[in-house]
Amino acid sequence: MTKPIIVLVRPQMHENIGAVARAMANFALEDLYIVAPRDGKPSQKAYAMSSGADFILDKAIIFDSVADALSDVNYVFATTARKRDIYKPAYNPMEAGEISIEKLSGGNKLALLFGAERAGLENSEIDLADALIHIPVNPDFSSLNLAQSVLLIAYEWFRLSGQKTKYSPNEIKFATKKDLDYFYQHLETELEQRGFFYPIEKKESMVQTLRALFSRTQMNEQEVRTMRGVIKSLTKEL
Amino acid sequence: MTKPIIVLVRPQMHENIGAVARAMANFALEDLYIVAPRDGKPSQKAYAMSSGADFILDKAIIFDSVADALSDVNYVFATTARKRDIYKPAYNPMEAGEISIEKLSGGNKLALLFGAERAGLENSEIDLADALIHIPVNPDFSSLNLAQSVLLIAYEWFRLSGQKTKYSPNEIKFATKKDLDYFYQHLETELEQRGFFYPIEKKESMVQTLRALFSRTQMNEQEVRTMRGVIKSLTKEL
Repeated sequence: MTKPIIVLVRPQMHENIGAVARAMANFALEDLYIVAPRDGKPSQKAYAMSSGADFILDKAIIFDSVADALSDVNYVFATTARKRDIYKPAYNPMEAGEISIEKLSGGNKLALLFGAERAGLENSEIDLADALIHIPVNPDFSSLNLAQSVLLIAYEWFRLSGQKTKYSPNEIKFATKKDLDYFYQHLETELEQRGFFYPIEKKESMVQTLRALFSRTQMNEQEVRTMRGVIKSLTKEL
Repeated sequence: MTKPIIVLVRPQMHENIGAVARAMANFALEDLYIVAPRDGKPSQKAYAMSSGADFILDKAIIFDSVADALSDVNYVFATTARKRDIYKPAYNPMEAGEISIEKLSGGNKLALLFGAERAGLENSEIDLADALIHIPVNPDFSSLNLAQSVLLIAYEWFRLSGQKTKYSPNEIKFATKKDLDYFYQHLETELEQRGFFYPIEKKESMVQTLRALFSRTQMNEQEVRTMRGVIKSLTKEL
């Protein structure tokens, strides 16, 4: 069975990248993707903080954008501290661990997105996620650092994957994020041409609504093809 | 209900004491006992690392020995990384969280013992404990730092004690089946007119595929209106 991929989005401090690698190693995670790190690829500071999790830093992959990092990923969790106005299913780390095991055993590639230290994830990045993870913390003291968030989520996955899962794995292969992106672009281009996004200031939130709606349905490859056929058909002139 | 007390035994780095205070605050723990800290009571370094959990450091109590710290405590867990030859019941953090809640609600004072960064706890100190906690980690990379051990155990206690932990899904009003049906009929009529359902024998299964896809997404009323707007827009002649 494959394991979840940790995706750090615009991390700033190399020390934090190192601490994340250490937390990953503690719970047997292996794949680290880093999107647009402020200070470039892991430096000596990252290695020092990893306490020997060099093997994770050595094979970490750097990407320019979240979309690039997720292009061949089938299922994505985004961890968010703040409540968002986006309607997506939200889970605690234990539930996310259970779902991860289920998705991974279906042959899907699964990623866990973590935003930058302060800024977190942008809405357009959260749009790419299938579901959110909220870590339940003391509401009066809710600042978890990056490595601690990774630690808790990795812990739950590791703990639960060591047990027999109560979910029967379902064998659905979801569409990749790249296929989904082509679908969204197709839909949005056709809508744009017909003046759907009006007034223009609302375009972003309208796009977000549509993407959230379709991401919840977790289309498989065949369904994405069907939906592209639907758009093609509807835009045909009678 | 009272809460578990965190007892750090002979901690060395003040930074670690601060990081422990932060982890405690994240999961609403309040009482920190420090036994024979190498460098005396929490210094500025500890406060800096606590990220604002000053209130915990301010009222931390320093003791000379583990026995002193535990003198009025009723139930003690000792966290140990290495397996010990001591026969004591051993639990994982989740089980320890459950037991803690049970003991605390019985009016007991409960403490969680954490040994020094490298040396851990002495056998005579472990003798004072009622039970052990083992954190399940990757056997090939098992070094958790002090604050991370505290974090994971505090997380389980907090999660299980249910302090505002369960995120209730937003109050979502799903669309009625009637609204959904109008939407499906709208979509299918437009597709039919454009020859989407071809060959005709396949129409039924194609309709079923589309309805299954949209039903999974559980649209709310607003989203159904949005999707009807999408169809109306896509079928507009350019």
